[in-house]
Amino acid sequence: AAVALVQGASRGLGIEFCRYLLLNKAPAAVIATCRNPDGAEHLAALAAQHPGRMTLLKLDVNREEDIKNAAESVKSDFGKVDLLMNCSAMLHPSGKGETSLRDVSAQGIISTLTTNTVGPLVMVKYFASLLQMGTGAFGQQPQEKAKQHSGIIVNMTARVGSIGDNALGGWYSYRMSKTALNMATRNLSIELGRGRGKIVCVPASWNCKYGSVLAISPKCSQGQAVQHRVLCTIPNECNRQLKHWQNREAYAWDGTEIPW
Amino acid sequence: AAVALVQGASRGLGIEFCRYLLLNKAPAAVIATCRNPDGAEHLAALAAQHPGRMTLLKLDVNREEDIKNAAESVKSDFGKVDLLMNCSAMLHPSGKGETSLRDVSAQGIISTLTTNTVGPLVMVKYFASLLQMGTGAFGQQPQEKAKQHSGIIVNMTARVGSIGDNALGGWYSYRMSKTALNMATRNLSIELGRGRGKIVCVPASWNCKYGSVLAISPKCSQGQAVQHRVLCTIPNECNRQLKHWQNREAYAWDGTEIPW
Repeated sequence: AAVALVQGASRGLGIEFCRYLLLNKAPAAVIATCRNPDGAEHLAALAAQHPGRMTLLKLDVNREEDIKNAAESVKSDFGKVDLLMNCSAMLHPSGKGETSLRDVSAQGIISTLTTNTVGPLVMVKYFASLLQMGTGAFGQQPQEKAKQHSGIIVNMTARVGSIGDNALGGWYSYRMSKTALNMATRNLSIELGRGRGKIVCVPASWNCKYGSVLAISPKCSQGQAVQHRVLCTIPNECNRQLKHWQNREAYAWDGTEIPW
Repeated sequence: AAVALVQGASRGLGIEFCRYLLLNKAPAAVIATCRNPDGAEHLAALAAQHPGRMTLLKLDVNREEDIKNAAESVKSDFGKVDLLMNCSAMLHPSGKGETSLRDVSAQGIISTLTTNTVGPLVMVKYFASLLQMGTGAFGQQPQEKAKQHSGIIVNMTARVGSIGDNALGGWYSYRMSKTALNMATRNLSIELGRGRGKIVCVPASWNCKYGSVLAISPKCSQGQAVQHRVLCTIPNECNRQLKHWQNREAYAWDGTEIPW
């Protein structure tokens, strides 16, 4: 059966992706990781609703040891991964994006980059071999066998990570972290798109049509807008995104082009 | 008199910028910062050739305390800065860019981001008020007084920091650091371009026509190619770059467009 891993699954988009996969991708196994599974009530409730489908693993993306342990555990229990979704992110350690240079601190930027950018990349370092052993269970496959993929990596980015689209400034740490993540995703798509066991690597973002651009806002993590976006991000739609990506362009949820 | 500060001046592009300013921008004062002024022989020799023009300051961009102290020292000795050039950068702590995901480590990325991205931004945090007190001594000023700038910030970036231009992959840390720096420069240009005491913030890069793309390569840090690029980067030419920047586009040294 298909195996999907959602990193950063305790709330926000992460838990919505898990819910979507459980409801719409049966019998796919869903591995949900978060920093503190014992405290993740909503995730536990979701697991209880889908017996035998979901595995919870402890994983803090800032701890390389956690990532390594999780990869070993997934290897021995599942032997492969077909889809990895990197979801965990923070706006800033203070909980508030910098409104001006005065709010900028070295430690604030470094913490944000560590969680939002370095974490997803280190995830891929340890999970790439499992994705190369994937059976291509997610995403539409091209006809030509040599072009088919074994796994898919989705790195959650944000429109505010676009340099060319940035007309407002502010949110230094968060913007920089997502811009750097876009570069990492691009590098990964090149390196892991070669040879056998191709891995499709795509950036994906989410846009709440109700006005908030903060993906993990509790207000926006439920309801129709999220469901819409979940549908657009989930790999059924991945090939459409992939096409844009291969063309070296990024598109907003409504199809308009976003520059890097 | 005009005051220029070159951060990361002990070698490579940094020392070439100092040389250029001393030779071509008299009587401008040149403040050269580096981690270890006592060991910076070439910089000391340059200072000796231009008595009274050059001040050497100890500054490690990874140490916020150094940056703060340097800003206080410059404030009391000069009272303003007209041009800040952020030059220090590393390829990777190992001295070698990552050729594949196997070479990627959390610590390597974080160190590179700290020096190449966070350092320049923290420099601006502490020097912005001095640049706002600048007298616009560098760069062509627009006719309209309300649009004139008081200072200029040049952040050295690199073509490999372009996501859209990236077709080869590799060099994860360095690429990500320059991409994130481009976003920081964009944010700065928005925030510091407002109101009185406008600061022009531009990304600049350097391209050695002899084939190396590594700006601090000793082979390339001397000679005609560098001189050419120094001429293009130095604020005489700044307004041309600025124009492109305001148009939200980036251009290569030969005038061809580079996507973000």
